[in-house]
Amino acid sequence: MRKLEFWYEFASTYSYLTVMRIEEAAARADVEIDWRPFLLGLIFKSQGWSTSPFNLYPTKGRHMVRDIERIAAARGLTFRMPEQFPANGLGAARLAFAGREEGWCAAFTRAVFTAQFAEGLDISSPAVLERILTAIGVDTGAAFTTAALPETKDALRQETDRAQAIGVFGAPSFVTPDGELFWGDDRLEQALDWTKRLK
Amino acid sequence: MRKLEFWYEFASTYSYLTVMRIEEAAARADVEIDWRPFLLGLIFKSQGWSTSPFNLYPTKGRHMVRDIERIAAARGLTFRMPEQFPANGLGAARLAFAGREEGWCAAFTRAVFTAQFAEGLDISSPAVLERILTAIGVDTGAAFTTAALPETKDALRQETDRAQAIGVFGAPSFVTPDGELFWGDDRLEQALDWTKRLK
Repeated sequence: MRKLEFWYEFASTYSYLTVMRIEEAAARADVEIDWRPFLLGLIFKSQGWSTSPFNLYPTKGRHMVRDIERIAAARGLTFRMPEQFPANGLGAARLAFAGREEGWCAAFTRAVFTAQFAEGLDISSPAVLERILTAIGVDTGAAFTTAALPETKDALRQETDRAQAIGVFGAPSFVTPDGELFWGDDRLEQALDWTKRLK
Repeated sequence: MRKLEFWYEFASTYSYLTVMRIEEAAARADVEIDWRPFLLGLIFKSQGWSTSPFNLYPTKGRHMVRDIERIAAARGLTFRMPEQFPANGLGAARLAFAGREEGWCAAFTRAVFTAQFAEGLDISSPAVLERILTAIGVDTGAAFTTAALPETKDALRQETDRAQAIGVFGAPSFVTPDGELFWGDDRLEQALDWTKRLK
C-alpha cells in the first residue's frame, strides 16, 4: 500500500483540520498515512520569525481564524482558538514520538488537537497531556519516561531537520513516496490522488 | 444579482489561476464579479516586505511554483514563471482601472495574465501592454491617456487603501456583499457559495 508522509506541528491550526479527517480520507484513497510530528517553530526561527506568522501579520491571523471557522462549520467540527497561541507543543511532540514506536501516535494526536482546538485547553500542561494519555489507554509513566529520553529528543530534532531538508516550511505538509511536497489542508486530496496514482 | 468583489494584483501567480476561471465559475453560481485590481506591493511594503514573500522565503516560493504547475496541469492551463518576478504591474493596473470605466477591464486582465504567465512576457513593458490593448480592440492612445491621468493614479491608490482597510493582505481575495473575506484561488468556490446564499 502507498504511504503518504503527513508532517504536522501540534500548535498548528490548519493541522487540526487535517488531523481530524486524514485517516478517513486516506482509507477512501487506499493510502497509508505516516504520521510525522515535527517542530515548525524551529523552521520559523531559522527564517527569522519569532512566533507564528498569524501573530506577526495580524490581518493574516484574523483571516485564518475566520477561514477555519467557516471550514470547521461546513465539516461539523468544533473550533475555538486557545488562549495561548501558538501553544508550546514540544511536550506533546515528544510524547507523539514515543507513541510512533508503540502504535498510539495517531490516537494521541487527535486527542491533543481536540483538547486544544475544540476544548481550548493548554497542551503545554503535563496534566492535560496525562489525562489524554489515560483516556486513550496509554501507560502514562512509561510514556513520559520515553518522551524524556535523550534519544527521543534527538530523534525529534532530527525529524525537524529532515522536514526542513525536504522543503517543508509550514504545516500541515504532505510528502509523497516520489518526493512531491503538498502544503495545506486544502491540498490533502491532491496529495492522496498523487500517491494513489503511483505505480 | 449578487456581486462578489474580486481583488487581484497583476504580478500575483495565484491571481492568474483565478482570473482564468472566475467568470465561468461565477456564471454557474449566478453571481456577478466586480473586478478590483489593486497594488499588493504597497500592502506588503507596509508590513515590512520589500518583495514577494515567494522571494523572501525561497522554500515557500519553490512550493508555490510546483503547486501552480500541478493545478494548472489539472485545469489544462499553460503556466510558466516570467523571468522577472514579481513583475511591476503598476502600468497594467492603471490601464485596468481605465478599463473599468469603459467595460474592458476583465478582457484586458485575462490578456495581461496570459501574456505574463503563459507566454512569459514582461507586463511592465508599454509595448507588451499596447499589443494587448490592440488585440482586445481598445483604442490604445485613449487608454494610455486615461491611465496616466492624476485621477486614475489617485483612484488606484485609494482602492489599495480600501483593500487594506477591509483586511486584504494577499491576492486573489474575495469580499462578499456582507463583508466576508476569502483569500486564495482555492477559496473561490466558498466565496461564490457564500454570496449565492445571501438573501
